[in-house]
Amino acid sequence: MEREVILLVSELIICFIFKECWEMSLEKIFLEPIGFVQTKAVGYEIRDKNIVSKIVIREKYTEALNGIEEFSHLFVLFWLHEMSINDGRVMKVHPRGRNDMPLVGVFATRSPHRPNPIGLTRVRLLEIEGNVLTVQGLDAYHDTPVLDLKPFDSWDTTENFKVADWWIKLEKERLNKKYR
Amino acid sequence: MEREVILLVSELIICFIFKECWEMSLEKIFLEPIGFVQTKAVGYEIRDKNIVSKIVIREKYTEALNGIEEFSHLFVLFWLHEMSINDGRVMKVHPRGRNDMPLVGVFATRSPHRPNPIGLTRVRLLEIEGNVLTVQGLDAYHDTPVLDLKPFDSWDTTENFKVADWWIKLEKERLNKKYR
Repeated sequence: MEREVILLVSELIICFIFKECWEMSLEKIFLEPIGFVQTKAVGYEIRDKNIVSKIVIREKYTEALNGIEEFSHLFVLFWLHEMSINDGRVMKVHPRGRNDMPLVGVFATRSPHRPNPIGLTRVRLLEIEGNVLTVQGLDAYHDTPVLDLKPFDSWDTTENFKVADWWIKLEKERLNKKYR
Repeated sequence: MEREVILLVSELIICFIFKECWEMSLEKIFLEPIGFVQTKAVGYEIRDKNIVSKIVIREKYTEALNGIEEFSHLFVLFWLHEMSINDGRVMKVHPRGRNDMPLVGVFATRSPHRPNPIGLTRVRLLEIEGNVLTVQGLDAYHDTPVLDLKPFDSWDTTENFKVADWWIKLEKERLNKKYR
C-alpha cells in the first residue's frame, strides 16, 4: 500500500478518535531516509575530520545523484537516530558535555540534543559509483539515516564571521592536540 | 493529550489494520517546527541576499536561544512547506527551471524539489530580542516553518572547492546583473 494512503488513513483515524485534526495537520512533518551511512568509525572516532565513510543512497534515488560529481564538497543532512524524545527536550547544554564550558542554549551549539535532531556536516566528495558515495569528514555513526544531500557553493561560505569564545577555546584545544 | 501518545496509538492502529508495523517504525521520522519566518518579500524577492526577515521561535524554545548572539552567522534549516508530495518525486531538474541549463539530479542542486524538502541557508544574525531573531539573507517565504538553527563556524567553510560549470554560469549572470 502507498505510504501516503497509510498516512492519510491514520490521520483520519486520529482525527476521529482524538479530535486532534487541526493541530496534527498544522504540526506534522514526515521525512523518509534517502539512504544510510556506512562507517567503521565508532565513538569519538567519528569526530575525526579525516574519516572516510560511505553513503548508500536508496536505488530509487540513484538518478537524483546525476551531476553531483561536479561538486567537490557537499552538505549532508542526517537524522540523529540515536537521540530519544527526552534528548530533544533539553534546552541548554555545556558544549561537548564539559562543565568548564558555559551552559548555553542548544541552538547556540551543534549538540545532537535539539528539538529536531538533524545533523548537518560539510563533507568532501571523494568518489561516486552508482548509488554509493564515498565522503570524507562525515561525523555520523554507522546506519545513520541520511535525509538530504546538497552541493556546497560560495553562498555557503563567508570569511568574516564571529563565533563564541567557548568555541574558540575548544578549537584551540583541538588544534594543539592535533599538532603536538 | 501528549503528542507522543497520539503517535504511538496511531502507529498501533495502523499496525493492526495494515500489518505495516515494521516498515513504519523503520521509515517514519516526525518533525515539529521550532518557529516560523516573517517576511514581506514575495516571489523572486526572497533570492535577494540583502533581504531582512524575522524568525519567531516558539516561546517554549526561547531558552534554547541563549548564547546564540555570540555568533555572527547561522544556518537556518526550514521546511519548504509549499512543495507537494509530487514535487518530491522529481528526480532531475534544470537549475532555476532554465532549459539552457543541463538536466541534473536534484541532489546536485539546491532546488526545492527533493524527497525531503528541507531548505538550508546561511544567514547573518542581525539582532535577537526574546524569541525573535532578525536575520539577513534568508530565502524563505512568509510563514515557512523553521526546523533548526545552528551556529556557523570554521568547520563549515572551505576555500578550495569546486562547483559545476552550470553553477558558475548562473553566478556570473547574477553578479553581472548586480553590478551593471
